[in-house]
Amino acid sequence: VTSASDRVLGIDVGGTAIKIAVVWSDGHVARADEIPTLADAGPEQAVGRILDCGRKLLDTEGVRRDELRVVGMDSAGIVDLANGLVLDAPNLRSWECFPLAARLGDALGVPVFLENDVNAMTYAEWQLGAGTGARHLVCLTLGTGVGGGLVLDGRLYRGARHAGGELGHMTLQRDGPRCPCGSTGCLERYIGTAAIVERTRRHLERDERPSRLRETPAEALTPRAVSEAAAAGDAIARGVLEETGRWLGVGLASLANIFDPERIIIGGGVAKAGDLLLEPARAMLRERAMKVPAERVLVVPAALGNQASVAGAALLALGRVQG
Amino acid sequence: VTSASDRVLGIDVGGTAIKIAVVWSDGHVARADEIPTLADAGPEQAVGRILDCGRKLLDTEGVRRDELRVVGMDSAGIVDLANGLVLDAPNLRSWECFPLAARLGDALGVPVFLENDVNAMTYAEWQLGAGTGARHLVCLTLGTGVGGGLVLDGRLYRGARHAGGELGHMTLQRDGPRCPCGSTGCLERYIGTAAIVERTRRHLERDERPSRLRETPAEALTPRAVSEAAAAGDAIARGVLEETGRWLGVGLASLANIFDPERIIIGGGVAKAGDLLLEPARAMLRERAMKVPAERVLVVPAALGNQASVAGAALLALGRVQG
Repeated sequence: VTSASDRVLGIDVGGTAIKIAVVWSDGHVARADEIPTLADAGPEQAVGRILDCGRKLLDTEGVRRDELRVVGMDSAGIVDLANGLVLDAPNLRSWECFPLAARLGDALGVPVFLENDVNAMTYAEWQLGAGTGARHLVCLTLGTGVGGGLVLDGRLYRGARHAGGELGHMTLQRDGPRCPCGSTGCLERYIGTAAIVERTRRHLERDERPSRLRETPAEALTPRAVSEAAAAGDAIARGVLEETGRWLGVGLASLANIFDPERIIIGGGVAKAGDLLLEPARAMLRERAMKVPAERVLVVPAALGNQASVAGAALLALGRVQG
Repeated sequence: VTSASDRVLGIDVGGTAIKIAVVWSDGHVARADEIPTLADAGPEQAVGRILDCGRKLLDTEGVRRDELRVVGMDSAGIVDLANGLVLDAPNLRSWECFPLAARLGDALGVPVFLENDVNAMTYAEWQLGAGTGARHLVCLTLGTGVGGGLVLDGRLYRGARHAGGELGHMTLQRDGPRCPCGSTGCLERYIGTAAIVERTRRHLERDERPSRLRETPAEALTPRAVSEAAAAGDAIARGVLEETGRWLGVGLASLANIFDPERIIIGGGVAKAGDLLLEPARAMLRERAMKVPAERVLVVPAALGNQASVAGAALLALGRVQG
């Protein structure tokens, strides 16, 4: 049994940065820090730096070693939950099959559990964020990749080999553009970062209205820049978000028909555009989904921001030591 | 607690016919009969005929009234499980909101439970058919409509308002043909009965090779006729099944990415074409789905035929009285 005074270390391993945080057993992130992943240098070098950073955070928070109950980690890619290792992650190739959880667990003397990052984020949003109270939840994260998480019948759903929830790789247009996954016309090819940037370029070429995005250098033409321009009233940026939102809505209609969820949560950088993205998505969902799911599902932005994953990983790990 | 000697009445309400069966508690269908639905004449007239037929079957099977434990019904459409009524079913419009389960339950003196027909079929295939032993199962039934059933983490999945599993209404091609559901380019529009018939006509027009389907009168040009011709070696019929199988595979790839299931079961009339339909589907799935789910998922034909729904409805009802 855990108590309210239990402290958990949450570790979120991304392709660029590793977030480390001291998390309370109610999911509150008490203190967090970030170190570079240096993904190409392999996992060995990172283990030592993760331990240094984690121990420093625990000390600063005044957490004694015997108060640390468990460590919850998450990473991108397909994760082997039973053995605590990354099986398949394009941005962490040299980390694949490295016994990450076991190595950290040996050093810290507590159990370490590894989870997929979108699952960790979904779990946190369900427990503490935009999904509280729901039993049927679909979570989409928009970024370079488009990830998915599922809470079905009140449980996090992972699939037979923990490879489920790849919602970014639903086909929306069979004869659509090639996707890095090898398929064509995937949702990710219409609402992922690359698609939004390409769409912005196309709109700027075709539409002669003034736009602050015309002065933006190519490397700064990001979904964030588009969202900011749209928020400031830029018509071309708004058009880009609207078209992106409509494609999102095509995917959401399929997901509503498949899952009949209570809520769909949209997270990730672009989701910060809020209703400029979500209203066209909701309209398209209502237009395309069956009556019952379309009428009742709520499409909402994620609530927890970029600390969702560490908090979720910590809570999932606590759940696993509690049985 | 039920015992092996418990008998259940299974009732499958379709738009054309009502199947009634005495089912043992292990799912064995001991005796079955069929009566016309006369859907447009409303549900009142059917209740009496269902009771007559059911009582006759019980008598013939030598089942005493006190041995009948429970009745399991299923119907097409969206079903209100708690109140045992059909909420939304295009082929049973005048049955909507009629207290079907309560009326039959009052007459028979046992609890009557209503379930969606594809869920009942999926449950039977899971317990007794092509899905035994799996914890993650996707079921597709191919017919006029394309229905879906889901077993996720070892439980039948229904969604927040029992409207989930509408797998026939995933978008595969946003700019594809209009679907009766109101959307465009749904899976059903590529592999449902109407799509297969249209495709057959197109192939017959474009392809001048001889085919027994050229002599088939328009009203007899059904998916069954296509399957039979293909089984007999008809090249045009085989081409139609192959194109249909490839579209099926586009849908299966999305479903594999979403659910990472152990097995996908294909049922309904067209599925009788077997590997002539399923091999192109499997090839397309492997081509388009992510590596982990694509490598491991099995795509198999349904095993139980058209008695799956009554058996499944009966077993689900037994499960509900057992708690």
